[in-house]
Formats: sequence, C-alpha cells, structure tokens
Amino acid sequence: MKHAKKAINAHAKRLGGETPLLGTPLVGRTQAKLLAEAGRVLGLKPDLVEWRVDHFDAIADTPAVLQTLDALRDCVGKLPLVFTRRSSREGGEPITLDEEQVVRLYEAVAATRLVDFLDFEMYNDAAHVQRVRACTRAHKIRLILSYHNFSYTPGLEFLVQQFLEAERLGADVAMVSVMPRDRADVLTLLQATEQADRKTHIPLISMSMGPLGAVSRMVGGLFGSGLTYGVGETASAPGQIPASDLVTVFDIIRRSRGGEMF
Amino acid sequence: MKHAKKAINAHAKRLGGETPLLGTPLVGRTQAKLLAEAGRVLGLKPDLVEWRVDHFDAIADTPAVLQTLDALRDCVGKLPLVFTRRSSREGGEPITLDEEQVVRLYEAVAATRLVDFLDFEMYNDAAHVQRVRACTRAHKIRLILSYHNFSYTPGLEFLVQQFLEAERLGADVAMVSVMPRDRADVLTLLQATEQADRKTHIPLISMSMGPLGAVSRMVGGLFGSGLTYGVGETASAPGQIPASDLVTVFDIIRRSRGGEMF
Repeated sequence: MKHAKKAINAHAKRLGGETPLLGTPLVGRTQAKLLAEAGRVLGLKPDLVEWRVDHFDAIADTPAVLQTLDALRDCVGKLPLVFTRRSSREGGEPITLDEEQVVRLYEAVAATRLVDFLDFEMYNDAAHVQRVRACTRAHKIRLILSYHNFSYTPGLEFLVQQFLEAERLGADVAMVSVMPRDRADVLTLLQATEQADRKTHIPLISMSMGPLGAVSRMVGGLFGSGLTYGVGETASAPGQIPASDLVTVFDIIRRSRGGEMF
Repeated sequence: MKHAKKAINAHAKRLGGETPLLGTPLVGRTQAKLLAEAGRVLGLKPDLVEWRVDHFDAIADTPAVLQTLDALRDCVGKLPLVFTRRSSREGGEPITLDEEQVVRLYEAVAATRLVDFLDFEMYNDAAHVQRVRACTRAHKIRLILSYHNFSYTPGLEFLVQQFLEAERLGADVAMVSVMPRDRADVLTLLQATEQADRKTHIPLISMSMGPLGAVSRMVGGLFGSGLTYGVGETASAPGQIPASDLVTVFDIIRRSRGGEMF
C-alpha cells in the first residue's frame, strides 16, 4: 500500500497517492507546435503534462523559453506541469547549452513559479544538483531527481540505491528509468521500486523502457510508481504506449481490485 | 522468450507457444446448467474450457459424468478441454468421493479421450499421481500437475521447485497458483515463473490469486505462464477477472510490443 504521507499535492492532482498519475510528454520544436500539441493532448485528460524542453529549438533563448512557458501554463490551466531538460547522456536531445547554462535556465524557470516540478538528472555535477535543489526550494517548486540507463538494467540493489540516493540528495520525487535486456530485468525494476517504496519517504516514479518493458508502464503503479508517461502525440522515450491504452488498463486493474485503484 | 519446442498442440490451440491461452472455467452443478454455461461462454471465444467437476452434483455417478462430458465435448466442438477435480485441500469444493474413487474417475475420463488435459494436484498420494500419469499416457491425454496455496506465497526458490517437481513427476504442464499477502508476493510468483520457464522443458501455468494478484492473470504470459483463466460466467478461483478484460489487456500488450504477442 502507498503511504498517504508520501503524497505530493500539485494543484488538484496527487503524486504518490492511491492512484498513479498519467502524464503526457510534449516535444514540440517551436512555441506554435508545442502549444498546438498541448491543446490536442489535453483532450486525453492527462493528470500531468511534461515539457521536454531539450526538444525545443529555442532552448538557448531564455526569454523565449519563459514566454513559451507562460503560454503553455495558460494552455494547460491548473494541470501540474513538469519542466525537463533531459540530458543527452541520459537519452535526451542534443542541445547547444552547456551545463552551467542549463542550471541558469532551471533557475530562471523556477523563479517564474509557472511549473510544478523540475526534473534534473541526479548524476549531473553535484554542485549543479545542489543549485537546482536550492532554486526549487526557494520558489516552492518540487524537484524530481532522475536516473536513466538506456543500455541495460543494473542489479536490484543498485536500483534500490538510486531511489535512496535521490532522496538523500534532497529530491521531492525519485525517478528511475532503465532498459531491460530480458524479461527478468522488467521484474527487477518493479521489485526495486517496491522495495524502495518501503524504504523512502518520497513518491517514486519508475519504468522499464522499450517494448519489452512497456508492461511496467501499465502495472508499475501497483508496485510503487506514482506516475507513468503515456503518449499523447509523440513518444519521448522508448516503449511509451498511448495514453488511452493506459487509461483502459488502469480501469481494468481498478475493477480487478474491487474498485480500489492500486 | 518462450521456447517453441515446449509448446503442446491441443486441437488448433498451442499451449506454451508465443501467446498465452485464455481459458474459462465451467462450474455448473447439473448437466443442464453446465451445458447452458458452456454455450454462453463460447461466445467469449476462449482458447480452452475447463470443467471443474468438483462443482458437479453428480460427481459420484461416473456414468453421469461421462455422459455429461460427451455432451460437453459436442457443445465445445474442437476447443481444448481440461477436466479438473480440484481437491478441497487446494481450494476445490467438498465432494463425497474418496481419493481412490477420484483416481478411478480420472481413469474412466482418460479412457474416453474426450478431454485434452487432466489437472491433478501434485501433492496427492504419490501412487495416485502415478496412476493418473499412467492413464493419461495410455490414452494420449496431457497431464497438468498443479500446486495451490490459498494461504500465502512461499519463497521464490520453493515456487521454482514446484514447477521442477511437477516436471520430475512426469507432468506435461506444471501449474502453480498461490495467494499473495502483499504486492512483493505477486512479483515473487512472476519471478519464479520466469526462472522456472528457463529451467523446464514443459509449458507452465501460474497465477497469484485474489484481488492483489489479479494483475498476474493479465501479464503472466510475459513471464512464462502459458494459460490464464478468465471469468466467463462464474469465477472458479479468487481474483479471476472477466475474460473480456483479459482480451482487452492482451491486445494492448500485443500492440505495446509492436505486434509481437508476448
């Protein structure tokens, strides 16, 4: 069972409560494309929207990013919004900013308070993690510290430790996303999530990527993952399945448990 | 990946192949009720039908059982048919037959060759297991040796050993069905199935029971379970979900893997 005390309320949504949230990533390259994408994705009634800003052509133009963010907030209304520059080392798009510039962008975004969550990789430079941690605290934004491995799935204990390390680094939410090489790896990721959920005091997010791991996006909520990303229009990571399919599976899981969601 | 060499063909269906089979249990107390139930359940297009004969009022009347079986075979046509007297020690209905009489009933049923599979508990008296094994071999019926625990989920290695023991006892199919006490138990059952599937040469069936374990009925095929029972009209074990929901989830899983079923 999830511990209600772990939950984070973001607008009307609750991350880490009884029910996993359904997020949809936005990957538009321009403001016009991003807002059009957001408008269409809202029809899927996601619980949360993530702007993957590493896909944004004008990422190096901070005023353009902030102005787009303002327009995006208008578009999504009160939906929780995650702002993510996924590092190319961890599966994101290549960008022209260096890490110092990324941290400054995060600081500027936090100061607007237009987002609910910043997602930053926990294996970035420790000083950068601390600065992102500091700016999110200062502006009452939540910090997701994330670990990705697009090559393979490390062992169970290593995975559990990633969640714990994110918490030690001050994360409000810990996220682990890894690539399975075989079906046993998918169970290892779920097992690590389940164990870490009992050892941490913050909500967790996890997924096993690729087609082999796609099932983890459907059932991860049963084992302690508080959020799953489903495709609105365009996948932002391998193995994401349509948001509508996730809604269908969540309904069936809820009924299979006699109405209790997860 | 499942090994094609492990698969068993039963009529046009393949147990242990790429795709898990969807079975529906029949629990009618009289011939009329059983056949009516079978007729309606066929509309759900199951891959296989199981007659849970411990629910049958006239179980002690062998000619009545055989005559009903004949009518049931007519009704289901070429669908694979499993004949199961589930022992009350392992979750079945109380019956008036003693174990010697049950074995004689199994021998009579095997001799008709009207069924494709007999399901017998592996922890029945060893001499009885051997006789059921002998009669299935003699009449070219497949034997499912099963282990149930309605109280809890034993440890990983114990569960793996149940599948291996069934194979050692001569099973054509090994089945393990256990009750979880927490969500970690559900993963333990899936993990045991995955490990046993790599160590055995026969198809496996497994499920974690109850509402908590219901998800194993949806995704077990990904981890080596070749058959899942879904409710046609009446559940025969705790946690079974509607067959139609299983079909929906299987479709979504198939698409999430790019068309490859499991």
